[in-house]
Amino acid sequence: MASSLQDRAAEDLSAVRETGPLVHNITNFVVMNYTANALLAMGASPVMAHAEEEVEEMAAIAGALVLNIGTLSLDWIRAMVRAGRSANGKGTPVVLDPVGAGATRLRTESSRRILSETRVSVLRGNPSEVMSLRSEEAGATRGVDSVHSVEEAVESARHLAAELGTVLAITGPVDRITDGKRVLRVENGHPLLTRVTGTGCTASAVIGAFLAVDPDPLEAAAGALAFYGVAAERAAEHAGTPGRYKSALIDALFALDPDTLRAEARIREAAD
Amino acid sequence: MASSLQDRAAEDLSAVRETGPLVHNITNFVVMNYTANALLAMGASPVMAHAEEEVEEMAAIAGALVLNIGTLSLDWIRAMVRAGRSANGKGTPVVLDPVGAGATRLRTESSRRILSETRVSVLRGNPSEVMSLRSEEAGATRGVDSVHSVEEAVESARHLAAELGTVLAITGPVDRITDGKRVLRVENGHPLLTRVTGTGCTASAVIGAFLAVDPDPLEAAAGALAFYGVAAERAAEHAGTPGRYKSALIDALFALDPDTLRAEARIREAAD
Amino acid sequence: MASSLQDRAAEDLSAVRETGPLVHNITNFVVMNYTANALLAMGASPVMAHAEEEVEEMAAIAGALVLNIGTLSLDWIRAMVRAGRSANGKGTPVVLDPVGAGATRLRTESSRRILSETRVSVLRGNPSEVMSLRSEEAGATRGVDSVHSVEEAVESARHLAAELGTVLAITGPVDRITDGKRVLRVENGHPLLTRVTGTGCTASAVIGAFLAVDPDPLEAAAGALAFYGVAAERAAEHAGTPGRYKSALIDALFALDPDTLRAEARIREAAD
Repeated sequence: MASSLQDRAAEDLSAVRETGPLVHNITNFVVMNYTANALLAMGASPVMAHAEEEVEEMAAIAGALVLNIGTLSLDWIRAMVRAGRSANGKGTPVVLDPVGAGATRLRTESSRRILSETRVSVLRGNPSEVMSLRSEEAGATRGVDSVHSVEEAVESARHLAAELGTVLAITGPVDRITDGKRVLRVENGHPLLTRVTGTGCTASAVIGAFLAVDPDPLEAAAGALAFYGVAAERAAEHAGTPGRYKSALIDALFALDPDTLRAEARIREAAD
Repeated sequence: MASSLQDRAAEDLSAVRETGPLVHNITNFVVMNYTANALLAMGASPVMAHAEEEVEEMAAIAGALVLNIGTLSLDWIRAMVRAGRSANGKGTPVVLDPVGAGATRLRTESSRRILSETRVSVLRGNPSEVMSLRSEEAGATRGVDSVHSVEEAVESARHLAAELGTVLAITGPVDRITDGKRVLRVENGHPLLTRVTGTGCTASAVIGAFLAVDPDPLEAAAGALAFYGVAAERAAEHAGTPGRYKSALIDALFALDPDTLRAEARIREAAD
Repeated sequence: MASSLQDRAAEDLSAVRETGPLVHNITNFVVMNYTANALLAMGASPVMAHAEEEVEEMAAIAGALVLNIGTLSLDWIRAMVRAGRSANGKGTPVVLDPVGAGATRLRTESSRRILSETRVSVLRGNPSEVMSLRSEEAGATRGVDSVHSVEEAVESARHLAAELGTVLAITGPVDRITDGKRVLRVENGHPLLTRVTGTGCTASAVIGAFLAVDPDPLEAAAGALAFYGVAAERAAEHAGTPGRYKSALIDALFALDPDTLRAEARIREAAD
């Protein structure tokens, strides 16, 4: 079983490289450039478009839609909902990154609104963000940083995934991905990811690229996070400080091949 | 003739370095940082300003205005038109980069609106973007990526240039620049440009810097693209992966001197 | 006396590293990514949030608020004022970076509005920006570049600081920081800072991080600029061109330790 998850990750990466899926991002100002470069480096084709007048058309030609509320405002949230519905109408997978949910009411409520008005295939967040979407009491996010561990959030994620019919991906030292029934663990990654801005947001975009080529959101998301995590490990072999690491991660996303991914991905069914 | 185009490119670069022209950009969120760094590195002085309340003033003190619709919205398009008219009133050259024209109606129509309401000196785009501005049938853009070759777009560009009285610069493996009568080819560049986001947008900004010091938009645009292309070649000698290449290109724009540009620029009158 | 300023800078840096203060930025599109990476690298925790509906809540949980008008629009200025008042209500320090004040009326007036409607702890700008806030006649800014020397602006800064009850930090080859009575000089820095976009804006954010851990805005701002300037010197030992320098500066902010800062900071009381 574990072996087939690794194979699937490698196959998804090959498919991304071969088909270059268009990934439509409505994301935050901080990470737009980095996310676009990550998608380009890994072999996907990014487009950023947020105007309400065009998001439906753009989402309709994309292979995946990635919504990220990192620097949200009301008009951008409206555009996210319109884009999400357009993607839903086409059967195009939607990823949601609820950046900072739990830190302000606007972020928590906007995330919930997107979840209630569109069908989200995968929601990726840090533990506090995910917990804040379950109940306002449980969640508290410090700016955009988690104050909870992944382990604390797994149960909330499992319930939330079942309630929403959405795959939840909680990232941290060991990632957990769940559809409410199965829970997968991804043990790849590197602590320097926490010293470069937008690495979580970029993980969400990488999930989008994998979803564009793989209809199973649980396994696609796990494969994407393993790919991203192995690249993060490789990058750390070339750069030990954040400035150089930022660039090295892009290079690792570019250079990592399916066979190496298969060999180094640590994805498994979780007991927890 | 070929030799004089190279000389002119070298002279323009010297003039940019000596005068540090202010280049006012109303551009997209993805590339703002990279474009500003490219302009600074090459010796120009970038400013980004998009508020309707200030764009006329800012454009009036600039040496060139660069409009880029990569992450457009209606208020930004209005600001572009106001800035464009202000620049026109001062005789300041205007560059338009119609990012993604052909992919959504908003992008195609906004590009046409800017072209009809302002005088654009140089329009730079990929083949699909340029073709989409001629006729909606011919054009189709996949997100922001071209689905046509430069060669397919040359005839459309020549007609469009003549109709609009604008220089068209179509970039790709070999660039073509035309005012409707003459067609120049620029054969510099490197494939890694396609793996870093915003390199097309940055080419448009570099054209802006050259236009600020050279009144001939055809030859200035060709010189700018040769400068950019030679820098792209130099950068590839130092970096073979996108993360490092992004930085190496900035360094090459900084380091490339007029004599080297004169020697390595491959600009010529085209037979096609 | 000089020695105690160095000690204080080193202590402030230690405090930032130990407490990781949350710095809320409402800043411009060009520098958001770079500023966030600089804050993360130095040990602070950045958050960017600009929606009027959430800025009060976000500012209320932050250790410092940094306002930067580099790509301003009217709604962002309104959000800055709301965030500023929220910060004021909590006693949270506010930094203002009046990017391009003097270049357009909107920038000059918006800076004045923020100064009149909120209590700003430290205003950091280049000489022309600072002079433009004193009197419209004196100031003239070329885009976002200064046309005056730091020395020309010191007297204006001293008067303005006294009038406003705000610390003024004018940066350039030698920085001056004044509260209207004392004037401190910081002699650290490197000319390559002028060839990378957003290095001034990032200095303002670094001041924010120091203010979050030090209640004396004059000495905290001087310490922050010394820290930034020493990092800039260190970065220049590793990179001599802007592309690599951009990354090297982040790495230097990450690597510079309090003892080295104490030894290399050149902060002193100024005679001028």
